[in-house]
Amino acid sequence: MTRRTHVTEFRVRYAETDRMGVVYHANYLVWCEVGRVEFMRSLGRDYAALEQQGTGLAVTEARVRYLAPARFDDLVRVTTTLVGVRSRAVSFAYEITNGATDLRLATAHTDLVSIDRDGRLMAIPADFRAILEAAL
Amino acid sequence: MTRRTHVTEFRVRYAETDRMGVVYHANYLVWCEVGRVEFMRSLGRDYAALEQQGTGLAVTEARVRYLAPARFDDLVRVTTTLVGVRSRAVSFAYEITNGATDLRLATAHTDLVSIDRDGRLMAIPADFRAILEAAL
Amino acid sequence: MTRRTHVTEFRVRYAETDRMGVVYHANYLVWCEVGRVEFMRSLGRDYAALEQQGTGLAVTEARVRYLAPARFDDLVRVTTTLVGVRSRAVSFAYEITNGATDLRLATAHTDLVSIDRDGRLMAIPADFRAILEAAL
Amino acid sequence: MTRRTHVTEFRVRYAETDRMGVVYHANYLVWCEVGRVEFMRSLGRDYAALEQQGTGLAVTEARVRYLAPARFDDLVRVTTTLVGVRSRAVSFAYEITNGATDLRLATAHTDLVSIDRDGRLMAIPADFRAILEAAL
Repeated sequence: MTRRTHVTEFRVRYAETDRMGVVYHANYLVWCEVGRVEFMRSLGRDYAALEQQGTGLAVTEARVRYLAPARFDDLVRVTTTLVGVRSRAVSFAYEITNGATDLRLATAHTDLVSIDRDGRLMAIPADFRAILEAAL
Repeated sequence: MTRRTHVTEFRVRYAETDRMGVVYHANYLVWCEVGRVEFMRSLGRDYAALEQQGTGLAVTEARVRYLAPARFDDLVRVTTTLVGVRSRAVSFAYEITNGATDLRLATAHTDLVSIDRDGRLMAIPADFRAILEAAL
Repeated sequence: MTRRTHVTEFRVRYAETDRMGVVYHANYLVWCEVGRVEFMRSLGRDYAALEQQGTGLAVTEARVRYLAPARFDDLVRVTTTLVGVRSRAVSFAYEITNGATDLRLATAHTDLVSIDRDGRLMAIPADFRAILEAAL
Repeated sequence: MTRRTHVTEFRVRYAETDRMGVVYHANYLVWCEVGRVEFMRSLGRDYAALEQQGTGLAVTEARVRYLAPARFDDLVRVTTTLVGVRSRAVSFAYEITNGATDLRLATAHTDLVSIDRDGRLMAIPADFRAILEAAL
């Protein structure tokens, strides 16, 4: 069995670069979120709707290993994999590559917890959890 | 009579630069907001508290003229002036200079409207408006 | 004769929102740049390559009028139009709409000048200028 | 012996918040960089000058643990500690707290490598390395 993954691609924006001429390192976490949102959409779950219904996912831990720089206008490919689901937490892994050359730019991992509108921990809604578990 | 102005200073962050080696142009609007918030604080009004009480200020128009580049670690000085107050709108002008050399980096202008939690136009609360008018 | 325009679409990122629940106003300038870069690509000119060859375009003036808020995950459509070309300057206009509802979110205008690697004004390279003028 | 640490404080900017009403998680890495730059300045080394002289520090790994949310206008305190120096690499640890309440908001760790203008690994200049080692 292979884990379900989702691939999304976009180009590096000028705003994402820094004076070293490469993408500023914090922006990779933004890209991970883009990957995560598209992963959920691919499962038929719209994260915007989930929040509208009162459930948010807040990042509790993030790790990024930077392997090679991304540059302005590069095609970036984010491959997102769901790597863990518990009653109140989910974990995702990401591989970020150059979509034109396949060069690996970064790997990342994020842990998230399910919270209500007031920021209190809550169980992931059962239907959403079932969908996530099926994608493990 | 001179208009009331407020001056705030901070250093350019690495994240704010782009591959041209200078500050990315959109970030000047972030600096204007920092200036605006500090201007209000100098009047004894905490913008965070204003929002907590149900009144937000949403930007409806922004203009920036870029005169000279700001670079990483430069000391930036934002001079904020209130230039207009109406029942549901306020306008601010900004001068952004290099705090070490006095070189003028940019001038900017923003118009804002007063909105409630649902984003609907509302009158600026009377006490806040009085404070703003006294600062014109 | 109709002016040449270019349309590009993308989704609002979570990172682009602010605590008002809508897109933070400075991010519209980032979107304008995405539109501008894609406009140039549609003319067969890669802005990244132009910079590599020694010519940059630096924003000297930006104006944005905000008409309606954009929200997380909204499909954003940026329609970019070249509105002026001179020996050392170009101007673009932008219309930003919700790609699903056609609601107009913002209009914007930016003036840019052509600079060399050291940030000095230079003439737009003749071949690039010819391509731009053909797109007016 | 206690390790040398450096403390820097600033307020949360509106632009740093997201629709959850709290600071967007990627921005903590920007704050770590602010802490790191101020740490170096406290050692008498200006990171901007170091880059001007041809040595950059590129982040190769970043980890953040998010403990409590930061909100708009909160006073943020970043305590930066140098935790490792090798010939071509340095590591920093960060504690991010609310400067008014002392609540711990996040801890973070970054590894950086020394690179030349072309992005190639290089030894940390001897004088800079000596200063760093004295601060361990």
